[in-house]
Amino acid sequence: MVTKEDIRAAAQRIAPYIRTTPVLPLEADWFDIPGDTFLKLESLQVTGSFKPRGAFNRLLRGPIPAAGVIAASGGNHGIAVAYAAQKLGARAEIYVPDLATALKRKMLADLGAEVVVAGHNYVEALAASEARSAETGALQVHAFDDASTVAGQGTIAVELEAQLPNVDTLLVSVGGGGFIGGIAAWFSDRVKIVAVEPEQCPTFNRALQARTPVDVATSGIAADSLGCRRVGNVPFSVLLSAVHNSVLVSDEQIRTAQTVLWEKLRIVSEPGGATALAALISGAYVRSPGERVAVVICGGNADPASFAQ
Amino acid sequence: MVTKEDIRAAAQRIAPYIRTTPVLPLEADWFDIPGDTFLKLESLQVTGSFKPRGAFNRLLRGPIPAAGVIAASGGNHGIAVAYAAQKLGARAEIYVPDLATALKRKMLADLGAEVVVAGHNYVEALAASEARSAETGALQVHAFDDASTVAGQGTIAVELEAQLPNVDTLLVSVGGGGFIGGIAAWFSDRVKIVAVEPEQCPTFNRALQARTPVDVATSGIAADSLGCRRVGNVPFSVLLSAVHNSVLVSDEQIRTAQTVLWEKLRIVSEPGGATALAALISGAYVRSPGERVAVVICGGNADPASFAQ
Repeated sequence: MVTKEDIRAAAQRIAPYIRTTPVLPLEADWFDIPGDTFLKLESLQVTGSFKPRGAFNRLLRGPIPAAGVIAASGGNHGIAVAYAAQKLGARAEIYVPDLATALKRKMLADLGAEVVVAGHNYVEALAASEARSAETGALQVHAFDDASTVAGQGTIAVELEAQLPNVDTLLVSVGGGGFIGGIAAWFSDRVKIVAVEPEQCPTFNRALQARTPVDVATSGIAADSLGCRRVGNVPFSVLLSAVHNSVLVSDEQIRTAQTVLWEKLRIVSEPGGATALAALISGAYVRSPGERVAVVICGGNADPASFAQ
Repeated sequence: MVTKEDIRAAAQRIAPYIRTTPVLPLEADWFDIPGDTFLKLESLQVTGSFKPRGAFNRLLRGPIPAAGVIAASGGNHGIAVAYAAQKLGARAEIYVPDLATALKRKMLADLGAEVVVAGHNYVEALAASEARSAETGALQVHAFDDASTVAGQGTIAVELEAQLPNVDTLLVSVGGGGFIGGIAAWFSDRVKIVAVEPEQCPTFNRALQARTPVDVATSGIAADSLGCRRVGNVPFSVLLSAVHNSVLVSDEQIRTAQTVLWEKLRIVSEPGGATALAALISGAYVRSPGERVAVVICGGNADPASFAQ
């Protein structure tokens, strides 16, 4: 279980290392979407995604072995672990599947991490990293199925509540469930939380239907950040009680949201970072009159060339 | 003269049309710059720059003639006037010099404005637009040398004061002086305002030396937004009493700031939008210990391809 106390403690612990990311209130009826919309620009977090919240909370929990830390990641989690390790003076080895983008591999290398390409997907990279950590004694930092990580990710909700005390609904994209799990653990029923996933990565959607984590095949343009085969057990226990809304969007709708973010707002997002907004723009999520909606833009590690006109 | 009352009235008048842009607090000693730094992300304003603050205030001041509005602009002012005209149901003709970027011309066309390319620089485009407005009766909306425009631009200071009540110093880039003039009219001596210009567009710097607006040749990578031959008389009267700090940065330092904004912060800025930050990153402006510095990122209308790696 992850409690509000865990999240409050995490917020204090990680405060020296992370940014309070800004909220952008859009003008009413922005882009012909009726009502008030607020964007939580977590893409402006250190390392360009929300992941350092969880990574710092995990690394600060206890002593880091001399062998350092190890993580498997399609990119953003690995970048966050490498960044946190660098700030805390520890070694980092990051196992990435071959679908990791060139930009994210470069960011890892720039942070001084040892980058190992292992397997075609996150699960294969994770298995390789676990074999390695068993050998070296390095601390395995799981991307989402760990209470410290989930509590760290939940710190965004503490911020958001102070910034937008009257928000009704929060749209959040979902990969392994750590981020939305932390958010749900903080808000519980006080805010309606809508899980948004690509049609090709419906990991939480299927788990919600089955009422238990199940294996799901993942692919598509957001797979490097949201392509998780199975939602984590730790976050799922929270999610089952607090998140009842699951929405799917197509890759085309995600690309449109990414383009709108760039063209209309000058905000750079990666596909996984634009997925939650895609639900609003596409009409996959339709709000009630007067419903105040916040959308988390959770990652900005896209190659700008992909927006070039 | 532009008074605090003018600015307060402008803030109320334009509120339905513009965004309260967010402030990003950076972690202490960000990018090895000692101290606390805050970025005011005005690049997230509607149309991608601060210009609609002034444009809306001017257009809302009185009736718009049937012939519509007309403006001369290297880009952002014209885009703001076109946007405001569209929202208020008026025609817009925008005269651009041939140095206007392709992106900005496209934005103008997308807003339904009639775009006329006239001359090699802002002064030539302005002369052509004035001849045209004398002919048609369209309302000429000056980019900076107008009290309504200056009061509108000053509304960013009202916001910033509420967001950062304890800021000591504000770094602002300068073109014709309308933006910094509005800010100075609001803050007067309560905040230290530092004017930052490209070495190749030292319009305010030379005017400050001469203690009167003088003609200056302008060129370089930020000339499309900051390349103004002569600082406006309206803003200069405020600036002479309130802005005592003028700093110049090279094009290379501006490009570095633009790259840092992208690579370290995932913020897209145009050269003129990154100029103020260049003063901090390059060391052209060195703060005192404990000095809390805010930097305005005032424009984001850059082609993302220019950041591609």
